[in-house]
Amino acid sequence: MSAKDQIQAQNYREEADTFGILQVPADRYWGAQTQRSLQNFDIGGVTERMPEPLIKAFGILKRAAAQVNMTYGLDPNVGYAIFKAANEVIEGKLFDHFPLVIWQTGSGTQTNMNVNEVISNRAIELLGGELGSKKPVHPNDHVNMSQSSNDTFPTAMHVAAAIEINQQLIPAITLLRDAIQAKSDEFKDIIKIGRTHLQDATPLTLGQEFSGYVQQLTYGIARVQATLPRLYNLAQGGTAVGTGLNTREGFDVKVAEVIAKITHLPFKTAPNKFEALAAHDAIVESHGSLNVLAVSLMKIANDIRFLGSGPRCGLGELNLPENEPGSSIMPGKVNPTQCEAMTMVCAQVMGNNTTISIAGSNGHFELNVFKPVMIKSMIQSIRLLSDACVSFTKNCVVGIEANEKKINAIMNESLMLVTALNPHIGYDNAAKCAKKAHKEGTTLMEAAISLGLLNEDQFKEWVRPELMLGPTKSAQ
Amino acid sequence: MSAKDQIQAQNYREEADTFGILQVPADRYWGAQTQRSLQNFDIGGVTERMPEPLIKAFGILKRAAAQVNMTYGLDPNVGYAIFKAANEVIEGKLFDHFPLVIWQTGSGTQTNMNVNEVISNRAIELLGGELGSKKPVHPNDHVNMSQSSNDTFPTAMHVAAAIEINQQLIPAITLLRDAIQAKSDEFKDIIKIGRTHLQDATPLTLGQEFSGYVQQLTYGIARVQATLPRLYNLAQGGTAVGTGLNTREGFDVKVAEVIAKITHLPFKTAPNKFEALAAHDAIVESHGSLNVLAVSLMKIANDIRFLGSGPRCGLGELNLPENEPGSSIMPGKVNPTQCEAMTMVCAQVMGNNTTISIAGSNGHFELNVFKPVMIKSMIQSIRLLSDACVSFTKNCVVGIEANEKKINAIMNESLMLVTALNPHIGYDNAAKCAKKAHKEGTTLMEAAISLGLLNEDQFKEWVRPELMLGPTKSAQ
Amino acid sequence: MSAKDQIQAQNYREEADTFGILQVPADRYWGAQTQRSLQNFDIGGVTERMPEPLIKAFGILKRAAAQVNMTYGLDPNVGYAIFKAANEVIEGKLFDHFPLVIWQTGSGTQTNMNVNEVISNRAIELLGGELGSKKPVHPNDHVNMSQSSNDTFPTAMHVAAAIEINQQLIPAITLLRDAIQAKSDEFKDIIKIGRTHLQDATPLTLGQEFSGYVQQLTYGIARVQATLPRLYNLAQGGTAVGTGLNTREGFDVKVAEVIAKITHLPFKTAPNKFEALAAHDAIVESHGSLNVLAVSLMKIANDIRFLGSGPRCGLGELNLPENEPGSSIMPGKVNPTQCEAMTMVCAQVMGNNTTISIAGSNGHFELNVFKPVMIKSMIQSIRLLSDACVSFTKNCVVGIEANEKKINAIMNESLMLVTALNPHIGYDNAAKCAKKAHKEGTTLMEAAISLGLLNEDQFKEWVRPELMLGPTKSAQ
Amino acid sequence: MSAKDQIQAQNYREEADTFGILQVPADRYWGAQTQRSLQNFDIGGVTERMPEPLIKAFGILKRAAAQVNMTYGLDPNVGYAIFKAANEVIEGKLFDHFPLVIWQTGSGTQTNMNVNEVISNRAIELLGGELGSKKPVHPNDHVNMSQSSNDTFPTAMHVAAAIEINQQLIPAITLLRDAIQAKSDEFKDIIKIGRTHLQDATPLTLGQEFSGYVQQLTYGIARVQATLPRLYNLAQGGTAVGTGLNTREGFDVKVAEVIAKITHLPFKTAPNKFEALAAHDAIVESHGSLNVLAVSLMKIANDIRFLGSGPRCGLGELNLPENEPGSSIMPGKVNPTQCEAMTMVCAQVMGNNTTISIAGSNGHFELNVFKPVMIKSMIQSIRLLSDACVSFTKNCVVGIEANEKKINAIMNESLMLVTALNPHIGYDNAAKCAKKAHKEGTTLMEAAISLGLLNEDQFKEWVRPELMLGPTKSAQ
Repeated sequence: MSAKDQIQAQNYREEADTFGILQVPADRYWGAQTQRSLQNFDIGGVTERMPEPLIKAFGILKRAAAQVNMTYGLDPNVGYAIFKAANEVIEGKLFDHFPLVIWQTGSGTQTNMNVNEVISNRAIELLGGELGSKKPVHPNDHVNMSQSSNDTFPTAMHVAAAIEINQQLIPAITLLRDAIQAKSDEFKDIIKIGRTHLQDATPLTLGQEFSGYVQQLTYGIARVQATLPRLYNLAQGGTAVGTGLNTREGFDVKVAEVIAKITHLPFKTAPNKFEALAAHDAIVESHGSLNVLAVSLMKIANDIRFLGSGPRCGLGELNLPENEPGSSIMPGKVNPTQCEAMTMVCAQVMGNNTTISIAGSNGHFELNVFKPVMIKSMIQSIRLLSDACVSFTKNCVVGIEANEKKINAIMNESLMLVTALNPHIGYDNAAKCAKKAHKEGTTLMEAAISLGLLNEDQFKEWVRPELMLGPTKSAQ
Repeated sequence: MSAKDQIQAQNYREEADTFGILQVPADRYWGAQTQRSLQNFDIGGVTERMPEPLIKAFGILKRAAAQVNMTYGLDPNVGYAIFKAANEVIEGKLFDHFPLVIWQTGSGTQTNMNVNEVISNRAIELLGGELGSKKPVHPNDHVNMSQSSNDTFPTAMHVAAAIEINQQLIPAITLLRDAIQAKSDEFKDIIKIGRTHLQDATPLTLGQEFSGYVQQLTYGIARVQATLPRLYNLAQGGTAVGTGLNTREGFDVKVAEVIAKITHLPFKTAPNKFEALAAHDAIVESHGSLNVLAVSLMKIANDIRFLGSGPRCGLGELNLPENEPGSSIMPGKVNPTQCEAMTMVCAQVMGNNTTISIAGSNGHFELNVFKPVMIKSMIQSIRLLSDACVSFTKNCVVGIEANEKKINAIMNESLMLVTALNPHIGYDNAAKCAKKAHKEGTTLMEAAISLGLLNEDQFKEWVRPELMLGPTKSAQ
Repeated sequence: MSAKDQIQAQNYREEADTFGILQVPADRYWGAQTQRSLQNFDIGGVTERMPEPLIKAFGILKRAAAQVNMTYGLDPNVGYAIFKAANEVIEGKLFDHFPLVIWQTGSGTQTNMNVNEVISNRAIELLGGELGSKKPVHPNDHVNMSQSSNDTFPTAMHVAAAIEINQQLIPAITLLRDAIQAKSDEFKDIIKIGRTHLQDATPLTLGQEFSGYVQQLTYGIARVQATLPRLYNLAQGGTAVGTGLNTREGFDVKVAEVIAKITHLPFKTAPNKFEALAAHDAIVESHGSLNVLAVSLMKIANDIRFLGSGPRCGLGELNLPENEPGSSIMPGKVNPTQCEAMTMVCAQVMGNNTTISIAGSNGHFELNVFKPVMIKSMIQSIRLLSDACVSFTKNCVVGIEANEKKINAIMNESLMLVTALNPHIGYDNAAKCAKKAHKEGTTLMEAAISLGLLNEDQFKEWVRPELMLGPTKSAQ
Repeated sequence: MSAKDQIQAQNYREEADTFGILQVPADRYWGAQTQRSLQNFDIGGVTERMPEPLIKAFGILKRAAAQVNMTYGLDPNVGYAIFKAANEVIEGKLFDHFPLVIWQTGSGTQTNMNVNEVISNRAIELLGGELGSKKPVHPNDHVNMSQSSNDTFPTAMHVAAAIEINQQLIPAITLLRDAIQAKSDEFKDIIKIGRTHLQDATPLTLGQEFSGYVQQLTYGIARVQATLPRLYNLAQGGTAVGTGLNTREGFDVKVAEVIAKITHLPFKTAPNKFEALAAHDAIVESHGSLNVLAVSLMKIANDIRFLGSGPRCGLGELNLPENEPGSSIMPGKVNPTQCEAMTMVCAQVMGNNTTISIAGSNGHFELNVFKPVMIKSMIQSIRLLSDACVSFTKNCVVGIEANEKKINAIMNESLMLVTALNPHIGYDNAAKCAKKAHKEGTTLMEAAISLGLLNEDQFKEWVRPELMLGPTKSAQ
């Protein structure tokens, strides 16, 4: 709901911050600071709101903080109410209460306050209190206890990114990888022409070609995982500038432990909190591995659509599944739309890498203030890559069929097979065959026979693409 | 509404395409092809839908096409119903009927069909017919008459981008430019230290400093405008591959004329339709001018937040307006949050430039199939820059105050003013003053007097920053 | 020559700056500040030196400054010696005397001093003085008279970029555009299959296809030119911070006039010198137009290599010239190496756009200190695009031949021609023909005849691709 | 030497390839294919030549291949001559014989042939034969035995990148990291104001601030190392399309083993050769870690120059070493030129990341043909980062001094210390002190005393920044 919509709503309550009193929609849990941000940052509209995974990560963090704070003396009634309200945030029940856009303060302070306000008001409600009263659960004193925006926001960034990578991205890439592996197995005996510089080259199997894609994705998963150790380090406990002023000794370690338990991921407290607030290199690093995935997927999707081009005037080696009308009149006009969606996603992710790198490089002193745009780009890249991999697998890869007739026909037309004749008729004669065939537009066999260099049986015995698929067996 | 939500809805009607019959929510105007896309491209969710300005541009195009088609024989009853339905699209009344995401076919075919389906069903309704019957207004035969996805989508891209640039961006940049100009005028007599390499340098006025920002934005507007001639060229009339097959001679020129009339912008038909379908260099070019704006605004916002840093331990030359609580305890802790929102927007726009460049470079043969991601990035950049400029103006620039006391104090402490003494006491003596003052931490005047080189009156007469603000007047 | 090499050289003279005395190779004109930079910035080695066009632009600037300074009282003997030495810089005779790398001070001060030192020493030599004596031509007092590094370097940036664009880039793009236009004319009657989504589509002529490339480059030239007005504005006269302190009233206007005369380009003094020192948006803007060229050329080179792919198993519509051995055994294996060099250049230019944008966005206060990397990237992009266009034209485009036999064969196999039968046998029957042909792998004609829908003569009369190349003629 | 220079040389010999005979400079070892490339790719000039580390890596590969080929039957006389010639390539003795630019065939074939030609001619010379005779050492049959350009070039890419990373980059980053660590230790007791949003915040030690930079670089080294496993996998053995046709079973494993021995790096044969030729994701990945380093170093260098800004009108907390004249008149004007060189390098590396990503994404089928631009960008980034880190360490970091007087003065002026009074005089009174001090421009102590809330002794006892540097000790 935009600021304008608020004004048109009928029922409000009053909420106050140190700047004064503001009207807040009666059916929303947010408070004055959220409302003020809505009015001061009317940038981009509803599609630019903080992404849901970040809000959920904040729920996890606030619940963990409440649990730890109870061990440091927070009233258990208050603590448990925060716990329950935070759980509702985690479950996504309160997402409508997070209206703020990314384009706000660069520390994400206003979203931290949005979370504090929503959880305190919801906790107050659970305890039978009055919304906006800040009693008995205060957004700052209790929900934000021992914390600062400057350490909560980067903690939520890491938690959100790590969860999405583990729960969405890696399974999606794995799904696609396995589907391509299955195709690689299915196509293991289909021999086809190789292409280098886009030009005809020596043969390989279609299975071998697909195995290259499998390897790209297997590496891709390893690449993402290689960046996780830094992402598992949490800023929580650094408070305002990294020193941990106003938090308690041990709070940082304990919060990380609780978050690890909630998420089943090996989070731990960052070894240096100054770095954790002032730089988000771990986000730049992790997104770098998404950038490699985008590069890989662009190549794979491009190959598949080119190999599936046709039906008559393209390469025509693959038949891609037909998911929607390509053309009302022409059967076989199957547009590679899933490849197109995938390659557009890749372009987006590659652009996000620029955004994140620029944002990461512009931190100053004790705080990087490009946090929201960094996590938004990160979450978007994960979501788009994940969804696109699933869609591409389901709606394209599993339905790919080899057009064996075409594959076989063009491979046998290829002049590159002439290399197999070298040992039998000599290099110079082989070259003559190829030149004659190229010039006259005939097959190699026709050319060789017409040159009197061999007969049909000999050609068929000697020119066997299935023997051109690997290195020469060694006698040693 | 996502595909999943559809399934939970209670009332459906049946819509058919050449692939078969699909259930469509009864209260939506879209048809089978839209529904099929929803199911096949479950990528990214609602925040990734086609941007509203593109849908409106499609409304303009479909209305214009109907007007021209009536001159080529389209039944006026049908034509006028399309006209009215298209007008509702233009007015934004039907936006809930465009659920498709960007991540679909790269030609945007499904969105063109979404538009055709919605307009035909709404026109059918206006004429008292039955939704989904395709009678008397057929989505393809009538709404899409003489058109193809391949020429409509790029036409809508150009129309949407040009409208947003003219209606949103240029006014917003102008607003900011004028606000900074007003500050430049207001500050024209405030002399301050200059800084090069971040180090103290010779003085200038604060008004002069701000005049540089004004110039950047004046150029920025000119830069955007310099790209418009290519954006005003429309692809419409190229149909499937650029030849114009299945359209009518003259259709292209007339449609462009009608669109120009509707929008009051000088659109005309593209001189070469092959280029207009196969490449979107005009989008890359126009976005390049947004990239320059991002570069300019990053510099301006950075300067302003550094000049406003403090209150005690920063440069402290500017007081920025306080829009929200910075710190509950420390008065004067005003975080430059509007600068932060602006610089994050700049990072996003610079990343979008990478996305658009990659997308633009990957067209093949007669069609570039990165259209949706290109226009989405373009529209996002325009919107964010426009909104951020308005927000930055209103919530920051107009409230900037010069901290004259601080400005004056540090300028007078500066050693750089020693250059003014050269003509009076000689270069070597001037250098001695500066060295002594630097070493002992005194003022220049103190050092000079203690060296016996001049007295206080002389210093005050000779060292006058107001005479250091321009070139030496020439006698010739 | 690297710093290390200096030490091994045998003959030195001594040169001094305010930091002390340094040994300089006896056969070099540079002085102490250049030598000091060599030692302090041992980064990247000889391939990272300041580009020659920048050094030449400095020559033009220093000559112009001497000419103007003589009108303000510079001793004509000194002034004319500077003029002559500067001319030698312009002619490239002294390039070996500019050893500094890009990775130095971000204002380019050390290169400005390198120029001052070389010109003063060469001028001293011309006047019979002693190298290193700074008499009678002082590097600062005379060569740099009325100037500062902060205004000379950005002036040289604009002069260098504008000259290279006008003398190298635009002619090279024009050469390529005209060569493609000639091919477009040559191929105007060759009808071929169109491809959208890489899939077979309706026909167009090969000449039409090439005309799209011509249009991209015609626009490309216009794009570059549209950015020149800002590039023609010169910073000279702003001196240290933009105020023009220490220069003379009118110096800025006159220097720009002289530079305009020397270069025959419409340079003029920048309307705001603060902007001209603190921001290099004009470079970002101009490079943006190079980025569009890279995007265009990537598309064109990609199309050409795909259309030339084969000889047997690709699209095979074009024969590209064979410039070097592709494969020792297989005739016809012509690798599209010129396309490959071109597309690599495009990737470089697109990356340079990121570099330049980041550099441009990071200026602070009165000075942007990313000047050297900006101009180096700009000059590299211009040079590579220019050279690549010439090489691509000469070694590829002019030798492209249409493989008419293949073009004709696959077009006639295409099922898309079935659209021409609609008016004669009806949509449903036409669809039946296409489906049957696709399923059975026959031609459309065979399918239609075997279905008893028409005879061979009728097919040949009705299915005429040459009538599918434009819109329907209008009777009105 | 450029193609033009060749023509002016006086002595030539003739060299032949399958295209015919060419004149080659008599004093150069290269042959016909190199010469042909020089003529066909006149793009960019000498600064754009293949980087030396790649040529050395080719030397290592060719030596290893000769060693392994001797175990498969290569004549030991020939093999050992190749070994010796390859060693000279490794030692850099023959670098003048590699004139080719990056902008050639995208597989790097011409550079592979350049290497084959130079090694064969040098080996022929060592064996007393005639240059150009190809006897007794043939460039293809012997030097390139069991290899193809398509597997040698990517092998050399990985070998070159891995060597440079290990020998140059990691030591350079470590040097810088350790130098900053030493400063962090040196500054561990200097308490200073923290800054968030550029605004005054709670204190930390200068040592703590620097420890954040140390952590960034420690992570940075780990990040680079995390990418090495993929870089250690070598393509060698894949030959033309990945199948290994024309090589021998086991050749791939053995060559990798020999290369590992020569380089003392854990190279091994790639598990999938199709991926290793068709994609260079490992380069994209490794460069991604350089991109993070650039992001980190941009932040660090920016902080240092801002903290060192002044001498009077900046933050002034650090004194940076003065390496060259900053200004002839103003002592203390020390420009942070090393920071400027470093940040320019960072902008270059971030742009290279775009170049490499675009290049990596554009591979097709069995071969990526953007190999040269990828390895050139990679090697440039490694070199520049390495050199810049060494220069920055030596010429800046080791000489940084804390300006304790200034640090202490501004920290004590800060109003943020008021938080320490809360427990003693209450939140409301503390706020009153801060507000009064801010309004009246006095110190906190003055304000507090004048309000009668405490006396000087109490203030000094209660407000102790040294107690604000960490979390509250826990009693539990």
